Amino acid sequence: MAASTQHKPRIVIVGCGFGGLEAARALKNAPLRITLVDKTNHHLFQPLLYQVATAGLSAPAIAAPVRHLFRKQANLTTLLGKVTGIDTAGRQVLLEDGTALPYDHLIVGAGAGHSYFGHDEWAPYAPGLKTLDDAFEIRRRILLAFEAAEKESDMDRRRAWLTFVVIGGGPTGVEMAGQLAEIARQTLPGEFRHIDPSSARILLLEGGSRLLQTMPEDLSRRAKEQLEKLGVEVRLDARVIAIDAASVKVQPAGRTSGGDENYTIESRCVVWAAGVAASPLGRQLAQATGAHCDRAGRVKVEPDLSLPAHPEISVIGDLADARSYAPGRQPEPVPGVSPAAKQMGRAAAANLMRRLANRPTRPFRYRNYGNLATIGRNAAVVDLATPAGRHIKFSGYPAWLFWLFAHIYFLIGFRNRIVVMIDWASAYWSQQRYARVISDIGL
Amino acid sequence: MAASTQHKPRIVIVGCGFGGLEAARALKNAPLRITLVDKTNHHLFQPLLYQVATAGLSAPAIAAPVRHLFRKQANLTTLLGKVTGIDTAGRQVLLEDGTALPYDHLIVGAGAGHSYFGHDEWAPYAPGLKTLDDAFEIRRRILLAFEAAEKESDMDRRRAWLTFVVIGGGPTGVEMAGQLAEIARQTLPGEFRHIDPSSARILLLEGGSRLLQTMPEDLSRRAKEQLEKLGVEVRLDARVIAIDAASVKVQPAGRTSGGDENYTIESRCVVWAAGVAASPLGRQLAQATGAHCDRAGRVKVEPDLSLPAHPEISVIGDLADARSYAPGRQPEPVPGVSPAAKQMGRAAAANLMRRLANRPTRPFRYRNYGNLATIGRNAAVVDLATPAGRHIKFSGYPAWLFWLFAHIYFLIGFRNRIVVMIDWASAYWSQQRYARVISDIGL
Repeated sequence: MAASTQHKPRIVIVGCGFGGLEAARALKNAPLRITLVDKTNHHLFQPLLYQVATAGLSAPAIAAPVRHLFRKQANLTTLLGKVTGIDTAGRQVLLEDGTALPYDHLIVGAGAGHSYFGHDEWAPYAPGLKTLDDAFEIRRRILLAFEAAEKESDMDRRRAWLTFVVIGGGPTGVEMAGQLAEIARQTLPGEFRHIDPSSARILLLEGGSRLLQTMPEDLSRRAKEQLEKLGVEVRLDARVIAIDAASVKVQPAGRTSGGDENYTIESRCVVWAAGVAASPLGRQLAQATGAHCDRAGRVKVEPDLSLPAHPEISVIGDLADARSYAPGRQPEPVPGVSPAAKQMGRAAAANLMRRLANRPTRPFRYRNYGNLATIGRNAAVVDLATPAGRHIKFSGYPAWLFWLFAHIYFLIGFRNRIVVMIDWASAYWSQQRYARVISDIGL
Repeated sequence: MAASTQHKPRIVIVGCGFGGLEAARALKNAPLRITLVDKTNHHLFQPLLYQVATAGLSAPAIAAPVRHLFRKQANLTTLLGKVTGIDTAGRQVLLEDGTALPYDHLIVGAGAGHSYFGHDEWAPYAPGLKTLDDAFEIRRRILLAFEAAEKESDMDRRRAWLTFVVIGGGPTGVEMAGQLAEIARQTLPGEFRHIDPSSARILLLEGGSRLLQTMPEDLSRRAKEQLEKLGVEVRLDARVIAIDAASVKVQPAGRTSGGDENYTIESRCVVWAAGVAASPLGRQLAQATGAHCDRAGRVKVEPDLSLPAHPEISVIGDLADARSYAPGRQPEPVPGVSPAAKQMGRAAAANLMRRLANRPTRPFRYRNYGNLATIGRNAAVVDLATPAGRHIKFSGYPAWLFWLFAHIYFLIGFRNRIVVMIDWASAYWSQQRYARVISDIGL
């Protein structure tokens, strides 16, 4: 193509999560002017963020500088900036510093944050886990809780410092609870003089009737068993109705609870893994384009991931309320997992190229290769889906090994893979966590 | 010894830097009740802190959890807390949370922070490098300066973003300037679309007439040559008289400057590596005990490192104004370097044991095994002192290799050594820095 730079279409991609990254990569050799804008300078490998929060990995091990990842992609410019709005009529992306980025085509993968279901007042007492800062804050709270317990002479208050509550039984909640149990039972014993860290209580509260609801029921049961073997108290049908600095109030619901009295858990360290809310850009885009927006703030997209009457805008990843169109089957909702975000990124890029070539776009089809969640040392559950639609399910040690290699394989950047492997190998053999470092203990 | 716990002497060690750590280790097998108190939860390997600030290493690679280091030392309790004062009459250490720790013997190694020579108003514009938080802040400023330059269209402002000033020509300043030059010339080129990172100016300002003043003059000259080869502008006899958000004002002084007009350097990223001030505990201790305190806030100690009329209190490391007593030589001041702090820690512990056994204490003798400073990839200066008092000096690649292995050898904790080696090996071959991660970009 001999077009001069000025005539190349301007593409803006918002967000360098899994979706934005894949979209940018898929457009690598196209005659375009791409700007990739994000409010952080790194791509975060979110499936391992809980390891940073639980002092198993350092931040740089799971974060790769975006500018470096795209240094050789000549058609792409990286921009560090916070997107505050999208002018869909004027076709420009507005940044906080006043910059306006004009676009011919726009791909929005701004992702999601926490949702406290209308109880934002809980946020200071129960941090969620989406960014590196979140992970540092949770790491700080976990390690300082043990330190505070060591100094506390009042037995009730000591017990509260040694009670950890994880709210939400999805993959993040299950992983956090498993790691907390390992820290208490395997990493810290022998290091304190006044407390026994292995006496710490770890509670996992789930409002529904089973853990890991996107997985088959027998794996949910297996995950619960494995957590309980690690010493986690799993409470199902346990709805959180209040959180403050020193306690969590729970309302039991449904059949498995055995009682219906509300009760209070005294705890000084609570982690929120229950709800996500899409970026506010979703609601803004929906208002501007007339697209539908669901309660979580996700924008309903067309089958090809574009917005109604705005074929120049695609929405992908956790920000999109998308359907999967498989031949001969009813459209199915796409789950909020990283493989789905990656596939949407590639699909949006491919449809963008089809549009530029005046060819018809294709509906998005999500290919589910399976689900996996880890629980702790040697424990995980895996549900693999074969192309023929069959499921291969396994748990325990083989599942854990599978999880381990899958995660190392998908880590972005070769160096990270090696360091993460060493960290895990050394953590595995020594039962230690080397990243037990708090930069600001907030004394 | 069959004494019950109640009769064992209570030892409090304040600070887990090099001095406190060595003192605690030296008392490993003694029948004592030791409390090691520090305001952070980790021992920091400060000689490599500049690597964290320049995105070469992650924080956990140079920080080891104190509690873990001493898990097997049964006579020692680790306490996380901030010491606010020492009640020398009542023999107790006072913590911010109201706790009082009684002691029979006290070892104080509370270290030093930055000194802006009476210009604390410069602190926000020129952060120093003592803690992990300092390192993160400097990393953030360096990386964001390049990002800001990329977005800036005004040429003068862009130049200011691409001008980095390091103030102070000691080891930290030399290392920082060398690393900045490498980031600009080797790490970042090719990653930006609007700026050429290798056009960045790096200035190293030293108020005296040579760099690395504790080293022999020919090595100072070598260090300057090697820095200039890396593209650092070294300015000697350059006294800083003002710093604000956008510039540094300099007053040339002395013979080598060639002119005497004050001048201003437009810069948006300034690092302070010029002065240290001892912890405020020094001045407090001096007032309470009548010991002398120098301008940097260090406490003048007796030959055996104790305080006058207070043999139960020893002061070590950067907080001590100590002399070295070698047989047949005049007492000499002890330099503020980590080997000296370690030696003082061991000497204070040995004297403490002698006192408990009613034996006379011994004066401290500093054994100088040499000095070394690194400048960048393949460049360093080494000055080794032999027991016979002779000096072996070398520079360039062999000195760099020597520096590398010496630092890896002295790193606390086996895992850290392996990971630091891998990080350095990969950084060496790829010329990349993997820790280019900013958690909070402060947009």
